[in-house]
Amino acid sequence: MSYECTHELPWDKMEEECGVLGIYGPGKDVARLAYFGLFALQHRGQESAGIAVGNDQEIVFHKGMGLVTEAFDERKLKELQGNVAVGHVRYSTTGSSLLANAQPLIFRYSKGMMAVAHNGNLTNASEMRHNLAVTGAIFQTTTDTEVVVNLLARYGQSSLEEALIKTMIDIKGSYSLLVMTEKRLLAVRDPHGVRPLCLGRLGDAYVVASESCALDTLGADFVRDIEPGEIISIDENGLVSLKALTKPRRAACIFEYIYFARPDSVIDGISVNQARRAMGRQLARECKIDADIVIGVPDSGTAAAMGYAQESGIPFDQGLMKNRYVGRTFIQPTQEIRAQSVRLKLNAVSKAVEGKRVIMIDDSIVRGTTSGKIVQMLRHAGAKEVHMLVSSPPITHPCYYGIDTSVRKELVAATKTITEIREMIGAESLHYLSQEGLLRAMTEQNPDIAEDNYCMACFCGSYPIEIPIGLDKYAMEGCGC
Amino acid sequence: MSYECTHELPWDKMEEECGVLGIYGPGKDVARLAYFGLFALQHRGQESAGIAVGNDQEIVFHKGMGLVTEAFDERKLKELQGNVAVGHVRYSTTGSSLLANAQPLIFRYSKGMMAVAHNGNLTNASEMRHNLAVTGAIFQTTTDTEVVVNLLARYGQSSLEEALIKTMIDIKGSYSLLVMTEKRLLAVRDPHGVRPLCLGRLGDAYVVASESCALDTLGADFVRDIEPGEIISIDENGLVSLKALTKPRRAACIFEYIYFARPDSVIDGISVNQARRAMGRQLARECKIDADIVIGVPDSGTAAAMGYAQESGIPFDQGLMKNRYVGRTFIQPTQEIRAQSVRLKLNAVSKAVEGKRVIMIDDSIVRGTTSGKIVQMLRHAGAKEVHMLVSSPPITHPCYYGIDTSVRKELVAATKTITEIREMIGAESLHYLSQEGLLRAMTEQNPDIAEDNYCMACFCGSYPIEIPIGLDKYAMEGCGC
Amino acid sequence: MSYECTHELPWDKMEEECGVLGIYGPGKDVARLAYFGLFALQHRGQESAGIAVGNDQEIVFHKGMGLVTEAFDERKLKELQGNVAVGHVRYSTTGSSLLANAQPLIFRYSKGMMAVAHNGNLTNASEMRHNLAVTGAIFQTTTDTEVVVNLLARYGQSSLEEALIKTMIDIKGSYSLLVMTEKRLLAVRDPHGVRPLCLGRLGDAYVVASESCALDTLGADFVRDIEPGEIISIDENGLVSLKALTKPRRAACIFEYIYFARPDSVIDGISVNQARRAMGRQLARECKIDADIVIGVPDSGTAAAMGYAQESGIPFDQGLMKNRYVGRTFIQPTQEIRAQSVRLKLNAVSKAVEGKRVIMIDDSIVRGTTSGKIVQMLRHAGAKEVHMLVSSPPITHPCYYGIDTSVRKELVAATKTITEIREMIGAESLHYLSQEGLLRAMTEQNPDIAEDNYCMACFCGSYPIEIPIGLDKYAMEGCGC
Amino acid sequence: MSYECTHELPWDKMEEECGVLGIYGPGKDVARLAYFGLFALQHRGQESAGIAVGNDQEIVFHKGMGLVTEAFDERKLKELQGNVAVGHVRYSTTGSSLLANAQPLIFRYSKGMMAVAHNGNLTNASEMRHNLAVTGAIFQTTTDTEVVVNLLARYGQSSLEEALIKTMIDIKGSYSLLVMTEKRLLAVRDPHGVRPLCLGRLGDAYVVASESCALDTLGADFVRDIEPGEIISIDENGLVSLKALTKPRRAACIFEYIYFARPDSVIDGISVNQARRAMGRQLARECKIDADIVIGVPDSGTAAAMGYAQESGIPFDQGLMKNRYVGRTFIQPTQEIRAQSVRLKLNAVSKAVEGKRVIMIDDSIVRGTTSGKIVQMLRHAGAKEVHMLVSSPPITHPCYYGIDTSVRKELVAATKTITEIREMIGAESLHYLSQEGLLRAMTEQNPDIAEDNYCMACFCGSYPIEIPIGLDKYAMEGCGC
Repeated sequence: MSYECTHELPWDKMEEECGVLGIYGPGKDVARLAYFGLFALQHRGQESAGIAVGNDQEIVFHKGMGLVTEAFDERKLKELQGNVAVGHVRYSTTGSSLLANAQPLIFRYSKGMMAVAHNGNLTNASEMRHNLAVTGAIFQTTTDTEVVVNLLARYGQSSLEEALIKTMIDIKGSYSLLVMTEKRLLAVRDPHGVRPLCLGRLGDAYVVASESCALDTLGADFVRDIEPGEIISIDENGLVSLKALTKPRRAACIFEYIYFARPDSVIDGISVNQARRAMGRQLARECKIDADIVIGVPDSGTAAAMGYAQESGIPFDQGLMKNRYVGRTFIQPTQEIRAQSVRLKLNAVSKAVEGKRVIMIDDSIVRGTTSGKIVQMLRHAGAKEVHMLVSSPPITHPCYYGIDTSVRKELVAATKTITEIREMIGAESLHYLSQEGLLRAMTEQNPDIAEDNYCMACFCGSYPIEIPIGLDKYAMEGCGC
Repeated sequence: MSYECTHELPWDKMEEECGVLGIYGPGKDVARLAYFGLFALQHRGQESAGIAVGNDQEIVFHKGMGLVTEAFDERKLKELQGNVAVGHVRYSTTGSSLLANAQPLIFRYSKGMMAVAHNGNLTNASEMRHNLAVTGAIFQTTTDTEVVVNLLARYGQSSLEEALIKTMIDIKGSYSLLVMTEKRLLAVRDPHGVRPLCLGRLGDAYVVASESCALDTLGADFVRDIEPGEIISIDENGLVSLKALTKPRRAACIFEYIYFARPDSVIDGISVNQARRAMGRQLARECKIDADIVIGVPDSGTAAAMGYAQESGIPFDQGLMKNRYVGRTFIQPTQEIRAQSVRLKLNAVSKAVEGKRVIMIDDSIVRGTTSGKIVQMLRHAGAKEVHMLVSSPPITHPCYYGIDTSVRKELVAATKTITEIREMIGAESLHYLSQEGLLRAMTEQNPDIAEDNYCMACFCGSYPIEIPIGLDKYAMEGCGC
Repeated sequence: MSYECTHELPWDKMEEECGVLGIYGPGKDVARLAYFGLFALQHRGQESAGIAVGNDQEIVFHKGMGLVTEAFDERKLKELQGNVAVGHVRYSTTGSSLLANAQPLIFRYSKGMMAVAHNGNLTNASEMRHNLAVTGAIFQTTTDTEVVVNLLARYGQSSLEEALIKTMIDIKGSYSLLVMTEKRLLAVRDPHGVRPLCLGRLGDAYVVASESCALDTLGADFVRDIEPGEIISIDENGLVSLKALTKPRRAACIFEYIYFARPDSVIDGISVNQARRAMGRQLARECKIDADIVIGVPDSGTAAAMGYAQESGIPFDQGLMKNRYVGRTFIQPTQEIRAQSVRLKLNAVSKAVEGKRVIMIDDSIVRGTTSGKIVQMLRHAGAKEVHMLVSSPPITHPCYYGIDTSVRKELVAATKTITEIREMIGAESLHYLSQEGLLRAMTEQNPDIAEDNYCMACFCGSYPIEIPIGLDKYAMEGCGC
Repeated sequence: MSYECTHELPWDKMEEECGVLGIYGPGKDVARLAYFGLFALQHRGQESAGIAVGNDQEIVFHKGMGLVTEAFDERKLKELQGNVAVGHVRYSTTGSSLLANAQPLIFRYSKGMMAVAHNGNLTNASEMRHNLAVTGAIFQTTTDTEVVVNLLARYGQSSLEEALIKTMIDIKGSYSLLVMTEKRLLAVRDPHGVRPLCLGRLGDAYVVASESCALDTLGADFVRDIEPGEIISIDENGLVSLKALTKPRRAACIFEYIYFARPDSVIDGISVNQARRAMGRQLARECKIDADIVIGVPDSGTAAAMGYAQESGIPFDQGLMKNRYVGRTFIQPTQEIRAQSVRLKLNAVSKAVEGKRVIMIDDSIVRGTTSGKIVQMLRHAGAKEVHMLVSSPPITHPCYYGIDTSVRKELVAATKTITEIREMIGAESLHYLSQEGLLRAMTEQNPDIAEDNYCMACFCGSYPIEIPIGLDKYAMEGCGC
């Protein structure tokens, strides 16, 4: 069950995490629908993919390493016949790319079989795991999701809804969770609503997905977002919603809007693409620069760059092009290529930038390892000036809720001043969007969501969900998902 | 984790079961030694192979479908560095060829990691599993070995020896069991000693294996058989033996000598090859036939045929030849080939048998599906008469201790008289070795083992270890191993 | 050597063809450089990839199906040691995805070994092949490139330059050709210069590539385009250029600028991205529409859409989003998904288009199978009006020079009027760029290239290179490459 | 097209070479029959396997590395539909395990397609290849079979029979050759009849195979051997035999009987198994030894050992056991295991040999690398004396006709005296069968074949077919097959 390690093309981004998808659709080819749904959620995890199907009698499943299209073929999919399905794409926050850690996790317990798919990260997983282990629980994986699995089995003598509520009382952190039995689908979003989860209909069938773009791909109609703390249960008797626990402060991850989610998704009523444009417009209000063109770092910086261009009146152009076929490679680059590895992904359009004063907009800077190379590439292509603008505030604190921001000391904005970062990347100037500006851009999109309803911990260190003192970041296989 | 199903070439044999191998050898390449040891035990299981290695800190492992040589390559083996190893080859007694069921089973519990490899079958697995499940245990596999694993975790607050003894009190059935922690190797043989297990030394290292032929292959010296009910523990302080439970009647599986074990192995002091020859000699005493040549059905019938020839004076010849490259094929035979599928494995040497009265000796008849085809093939090649002799008694009862004899109604000798079987296979005559004769042949080899120290249940229905009333043969994934 | 057929996600584009790359670089890891160079040319062919390396003594090679990253791994690349390399990515214009047809073609002839990589299509390949066959030539592939290979072997008693010139006299059609011996690299561009080919330097090494973006990726400096009819020879004595044949009319494929080439490439002095923007601007001059936003069909329609927005003053927005992970899938879509399969690749950003009058710009329409689905998707997302504009003229004639435009009757503009097409796709209006407008946009970029120096045959039917009467389009395995 | 190199388990045998199989059977699943036929010929080549099928219109094919069961799966076989098939298993005599060299070779020539499968070795291949190359022929492989292919194409303007006769005039050496067009099957055996080739019928279908055991496996009836120099042509008009060339001295390879062929095959009227027993009996007449038991080195030494036991009256026993699952392994042995690597294949039955004076019979000694290890293993198991007898004469000269005996200096009997060899292997005595004795054993089987009708060149250096002076053994990819 080992897997060849790959040389991910270098990129300086926070890395999501996971995507989940559930379908309750007797009479439909649910595994096939799950496949194409996961295909739309591929950006949320490229390490492994899995689909489990319940056929009333049992749960059958297949999991594989790599992209959805790599993990499945026609034969494998045909073996997954049933009425209800859950799927998962995973990005591991640590180095251990084990097939054993791929989800959904499938297990047998006193009442039958169950499959669990998780997006998020539990902050008290180590503690809960210890408690389970000393009373005899065994573990096959190093994921926090197996803690959920064991709790569900422990509470399994009750009804499944009751077991879920008890489990929700025990666990802390972020979780958009799908639980499937042989004949039933349950969906849960944590009480803070950190990660997105939405509901759709495809004819008679129900679809639950991390993002609405998966519903669009399947041709399903968007119904609504699952609410923070809500449990949805779907079976032959239809859909039932349950809100058992009192609702704490909502704390939706703002980085879903800045970078993670697909631009064509709508999360909690806000279009991701429109939010990004608004961040760009706000950036233009905060930071006026005398320049000839605005360009975005593709793909995620493009929308903000267009917003900036719109507000500032400086023309937008495609100054950087991305290789459409970029992906994993199993090949070690030569020394020459490694030095300028960013060229494997991006190339400057010299005729667009030469002789120009360029404003280059990216959505975020994490470690700061690639921005300098892009600036250099633009200069090599003839840019006279390069001003770097970032459509989010400086990232100064790690995320404990399911995103791989690595440890604090690796975050460039946690250890360096903006001036130092500017020098490091060699730009004429460097500006970040302010925290207030970011929230203003969000409020502009949906005034009904209060400013303190977003988790901004990575910018300000104010963590909405308790984190253990001295928590060794990801002591367990983080992200759970 | 699915696996393409294969068309096993048809053969009418009881199917072993599993093979286990453990090595405690700091400073040695224990995974590589385990690989070559399993290579020697390949005949005990061809469905999947696995090796787990403890490196003091953790347990790393790899498992794969197919033969040892298919499941491992140099890269995978190199990743398994450590001081102690356990390996397993598996033959599943049911159709579910799941990689998830491959062994060793590896799990994390309150005190660290553990790996378990099992040869045998628990008769009270369903009951024990139920008891564990209702108190919250979850299961990843459908094997009875996972029951052992959960019991060890439950008793895990005690020392490992104590946990093992408690587990041995709970479980019933046959088991040659290897348990490995990050730094220690334990070996257990069930109190009846149903399956073999022996100990060897390779320089400073200890080797524990299902059969002595694995020791020979590694160049290790045979030390002794593990005794029924004995627990062996090996770590940096050396080897300790523990016999905690009172010893019931020994009940070594006599079929290990008749068919399963490799002829070059010595089990509990008896050479498998010599035992088979003795059975052939005894058969000659019980059944005198006027014929021109004696031939064996390769490979397992050859030794008995030679013994018969020796005792009777009728010359032995190789009248049947086996395709050396026979194995799994992924190809569906044509109708013509299926009808005489035995020819893919065997072919008659016409010049040896034509015009002759032939005595054909096989070690056993299970379903009776191939003997008729072999008789027909010999006639087609010119044999004048074909007398079939079997060097074991008629199999009339299923095995519950780790051998795939299928259900009782499929056993031809359980439902038909010898005359009916003879007619079915179309031989001039058909004779089986008597139960008394079989035991006499065994006693001839080692007079120290009493006749009632062998399990003869498949011939007589007298089961030495309690089996549940109305046990649906292999309700659980049988054989455990 | 068979290969599983895949379900290419449906798309209505002309399909390039092939990409070639050569490196002469003693002391460098030429295979690794070729790998990353092909990575940059991946858009020119995704069916198979191959690299051959000359090490003075012999030529070693590896070819595989799929993307460059799928066809090669570290082990395979390490086996390719040498001083000179040629690589190839292939898109087959017919259905036969045979590994045998993958390039470079490697062969042994009287003077040693040779490798040939070809981008283009010979129009007299069938005739030449017949002539060779009747005098005893044998063929392993169904490609026209093997005709080149056999001609080179026939003329092999002369010097290689002479053999190449004789071959160029025999063959008609388009070809950017790389020929490698054990120690030497030759590059040829056909006398009409139909396909691009350019030269670069990487330290002491020379690089020849289909497009300049490959030079950028390797960090190589662009030197110049290879001229039509030019032969370049590179070996230990350096680079020699040879122009033996009189130069006919230049006829560069204009579709390289419209769709095929990467936007960051510069071909014959013209930036592909800037040319596309100019086409968009020209479209705005020819066709004024009262609308709220301009959107492009990603990725290739984006630049023209921006040009249109710039010229017209109507704001540009990202109304359509592409799945970044789109690629091959081995899964048959469900009926529901097939009906709206375009959603696997694209999704509308509803908040951007709802209530708006939308101008949607694409670079071309071939069969017309997807435009209607995109229009429908935009309406579903709330667009009030959808006007479709195409930044190239109607395609009415097939290409015989290396592009898969399929047969004439499948070209929608060859059989339907613009009004009929508009009705078919359901847009409020439909406009194409005029032929004069297209040439004007090109001349705007580089006034030195005369208007009649482009091949416009697919728009007007005036073929610059003779094509056989009644040529069954791609009787042979077309595209040669 | 590269292939991972494997660690063949060490063995000291001459290595065959290749196996061919052809079927003409409209209405039958010819590819499937070819598969199972090759399965029976697997012992003749384990490096690669291929099947080509003619369906009247074209030839389709698949080739793969490894065993037949590894190279093919159900899907690949299903793609091979047609009326006529040729198959091939290959053992390369050199290290280059290229898929490109796998057979059948398929090519297109002026009249259509052709497939060629070859068992044997051309002695003038280099010369013929040179002649073809200087007149423009190109080569894809390094095999001598491609010389045959090019000659057939050159002579292709005549009828196929005429082209074959002309080709037979040009080529020298050994060849059992199958040639297939889209609708026709031809079979040729070289004028000396070095390699075997026989004809069978399966209902209406014709089968041609290297050995009769393949006919048995398919349930086909043996018709007759193809005669030396004979051409058989089979198509819709039935079978035609052609003997165009005058017949030289027959020179059947005697090693087919000693080691290569399967014991259940009958070649030119002689049972391979019976021939081996006769060699053993003759050995007993030539060499009387006072011993307790006779054992054979499995599998190929067993028949001779039984013959020796029969003639001498000394009892035969199975003193050595072979691992049934031995095959290729991809794992590098540890130093300990490498030193006694023979144990991976063989193990001694200690109870059979201990305290005994043992006669151990093997069929041949080539390099002498394993015999010593086996002797040592027997002593370690308790043998008091070990006398080694060889049922063939000393091999002193290399084979140029398709067998891998390696170069002369590696043949232990070419450089050492029998006494020196005996010392090297550490046996009490060492005896070889005499050349006269070998021929006597053969004549005993079929008195109609004269003694000088066998090729004994490897024992005596008298080569029946001209070999080039100073021929660098296998300058070309030898064995052709």
